[in-house]
Amino acid sequence: MELLLTVSRERPGTLSAQIQGQVRDAVRSGSLRAGTPVPSTRELAAQLGVSRKVAVDAYAQLAAEGYLALRQGAQPRVAAGPFVHPSAGSGPGSSDPIRYDFRPARPDVSSFPRAAWARCLRDAVTEITVDDLGYGDPFGTGTLRDTLADYLGRVRGVVATRDRVVVTNGYLQGLGLICRALAARGARRIACEQPGSPEEARIAARAGLEAVRVPVDELGLRVDRLAATRADAVVLTPAHQHPTGVVLAPARRTALIAWLRATGAIAVEDDYDAEYRYDRPAVGALQGLDQDHVVYAGTASKVLAPALRLGWMVLPSVLVRDVRTERLLLDQGTARIEQLAYAHFVRRGELDRHLRRMRLRYRRRRDAVIEALASSMPAARVRGIAAGLHVTVELPPSVDSAAVASAARANGIALATLADYGAPSPPTLILGYSQMTESRLRSGIRELATLVT
Amino acid sequence: MELLLTVSRERPGTLSAQIQGQVRDAVRSGSLRAGTPVPSTRELAAQLGVSRKVAVDAYAQLAAEGYLALRQGAQPRVAAGPFVHPSAGSGPGSSDPIRYDFRPARPDVSSFPRAAWARCLRDAVTEITVDDLGYGDPFGTGTLRDTLADYLGRVRGVVATRDRVVVTNGYLQGLGLICRALAARGARRIACEQPGSPEEARIAARAGLEAVRVPVDELGLRVDRLAATRADAVVLTPAHQHPTGVVLAPARRTALIAWLRATGAIAVEDDYDAEYRYDRPAVGALQGLDQDHVVYAGTASKVLAPALRLGWMVLPSVLVRDVRTERLLLDQGTARIEQLAYAHFVRRGELDRHLRRMRLRYRRRRDAVIEALASSMPAARVRGIAAGLHVTVELPPSVDSAAVASAARANGIALATLADYGAPSPPTLILGYSQMTESRLRSGIRELATLVT
Repeated sequence: MELLLTVSRERPGTLSAQIQGQVRDAVRSGSLRAGTPVPSTRELAAQLGVSRKVAVDAYAQLAAEGYLALRQGAQPRVAAGPFVHPSAGSGPGSSDPIRYDFRPARPDVSSFPRAAWARCLRDAVTEITVDDLGYGDPFGTGTLRDTLADYLGRVRGVVATRDRVVVTNGYLQGLGLICRALAARGARRIACEQPGSPEEARIAARAGLEAVRVPVDELGLRVDRLAATRADAVVLTPAHQHPTGVVLAPARRTALIAWLRATGAIAVEDDYDAEYRYDRPAVGALQGLDQDHVVYAGTASKVLAPALRLGWMVLPSVLVRDVRTERLLLDQGTARIEQLAYAHFVRRGELDRHLRRMRLRYRRRRDAVIEALASSMPAARVRGIAAGLHVTVELPPSVDSAAVASAARANGIALATLADYGAPSPPTLILGYSQMTESRLRSGIRELATLVT
Repeated sequence: MELLLTVSRERPGTLSAQIQGQVRDAVRSGSLRAGTPVPSTRELAAQLGVSRKVAVDAYAQLAAEGYLALRQGAQPRVAAGPFVHPSAGSGPGSSDPIRYDFRPARPDVSSFPRAAWARCLRDAVTEITVDDLGYGDPFGTGTLRDTLADYLGRVRGVVATRDRVVVTNGYLQGLGLICRALAARGARRIACEQPGSPEEARIAARAGLEAVRVPVDELGLRVDRLAATRADAVVLTPAHQHPTGVVLAPARRTALIAWLRATGAIAVEDDYDAEYRYDRPAVGALQGLDQDHVVYAGTASKVLAPALRLGWMVLPSVLVRDVRTERLLLDQGTARIEQLAYAHFVRRGELDRHLRRMRLRYRRRRDAVIEALASSMPAARVRGIAAGLHVTVELPPSVDSAAVASAARANGIALATLADYGAPSPPTLILGYSQMTESRLRSGIRELATLVT
């Protein structure tokens, strides 16, 4: 417990007056806030090298003036006085309350396996090596990188070894790193899916790359349109296009790999939710077809919780050096105790257990949404495969999806539309179903149906 | 426990043969690595919708061929066979072994308070709200931001409220964010200390800013030289210049604030190790003098462990919006369970306790180095204040510090020189003393002295 004060016999005023003046200023300016504990008089005297009496006198005066709250046997604190200091803002996003949360691409974090995660964290703190507590490899701990290489090989058909696995603070950070590494190697343009995530173009621009949009149809990305873009790279969601929900067709995969090899371009495979498939096995990762031209990118945000800020990439060897350089300059790597905890979580089968439980739950929720849509909005058409954490709901062409979204918002229903992903037509709602129970989902859809006219 | 396989009666080969072929390919290509657990035959049969017998037959054949290791009652695994796949690299930095580690700016992580940190993590996992488990405020959890505002006010004289506190993944990430926010506001040039951290200019360049160097003398940054640079911002280490160890003189502080106000420029105050002062109270943060032109930046890397990747900034209100935008595009914030753990660590007095213990230890180590230098290298002069985690050792002008560093490296002694920070003269060693016991420090200095000729 320390307080930043300095006193000197060479300055004007008694030592006690100097202490008082500095504490008063700190409280008035807000640098010492109401309720903040301050050192005991014994501690303060020792810190400043003054007698105990000087400290006691100063505190007594400050208490008398209402700056400090002293109570026998308790830690002294800054009083809860009427001091003027800037009020703490409540942060963004505190607008209308959300009654029905259909926002997509979020898992049900109320099911976060707290006990299992706490055990993994505890073991990670116990076991972490002194080397790993320091500035370690910016790509991450060897333990997690080996674990991910094994896991992704087993579940997604990814071909990886430790030296090409990078642990990231989530997918977007990984995309930014790849864009910077590509720019450092002379890349100029990167193709993105249309419709697709609105952040990608902005992230590319930060790295000095121009984003060009390539359309998506029922078979996924229009790979035949890539050549005309003269792009040096392409970002795509082949397993479950975000947000339309279609799968990149086999012939398109082959054509994409051929284009990558012919041009030397790099594909970034955003495998954001492949863990959730409800009626068929997941298609294997594109990266399994070509490890020299495809960056595989995954995240714990959808399988566990966004709060972990944990993701990973498997790099073509040609990008390893540049990504390492950029990572060192960006933030020197991801928090390492959590990396070890995640390695435990995967190795002990906790992740598989959690996913089995969540898949059942999400599947039931998806079924509830689809049944409710069929009965309340018979004109709507659900597109995409039975997968992921949202449904894509195409409305009749006469419907104005912006008006629906705006009416929904006014009624406390949060959702997205295809327009949010850069495609104003056809009128389409993107409804996440992961965060509500089946009965809430049913009543939410019923209420939403009344707004679709 | 899942395996990415697909089988179909419409494909050529029996179902068992299809399983075998896919597992063989995965093992050969390295996507299934030696030792990786695979599903039991019961689980595999359920996953693929085939009979148990099909799975048993396939596994028996794969075991017979040496691909799988089966043991009664144990989880089946990929065998430790002679499969050809890319070898896992051992990562960078595995050059000569370090016998004496004098690298600066690293704490003694062997003293990391594992038990206390584990308790804080456990409580954080238990208490974290569902909102905080999702995509929360990219600036961080309110709990930690309030805690930091109080703590920094108490200990460093920083004036802060929650809405201007950003939790970062360490200082360098924060600097990058500030540079990007400044660039978005039209800034072109940023001044950095000479000597100073070599990364700063590269980080500025990534954001499109030109770094210009301004010299440091015995009174700290030459503030009088700022005007000529026409810089829009300046990065400095006022409490303990890195690496020279001098303190920014009071008149320079006043002149700096005047320059900031006159030009509207922004200062980034890197307060990297103010917690460690051995013979005098720390000078208060520059930010306390002007909250509208100074970004205060701190880190847990020196007080606890770099592995946490945890830092913080207090922003002038004019930068809040742009930093938020850049943070959302960069990585959407810092891991939140760890933020709550750190808030607990501070609030419970664990940080103060840890710092008291470490200050005593570091002070003894510093004294040991200074005594050893006086007896083994009498011509060397220790510069800077009694603070931080390293000493700055000026050698006689005739000494070639690059040759000393190179001889030291060859003898397993890791250290830095002033040249590493962009100042080739005077010949100066930067010796971190935090990571060795007093007796190791003494013998390290003695051995180093034999190389200084």
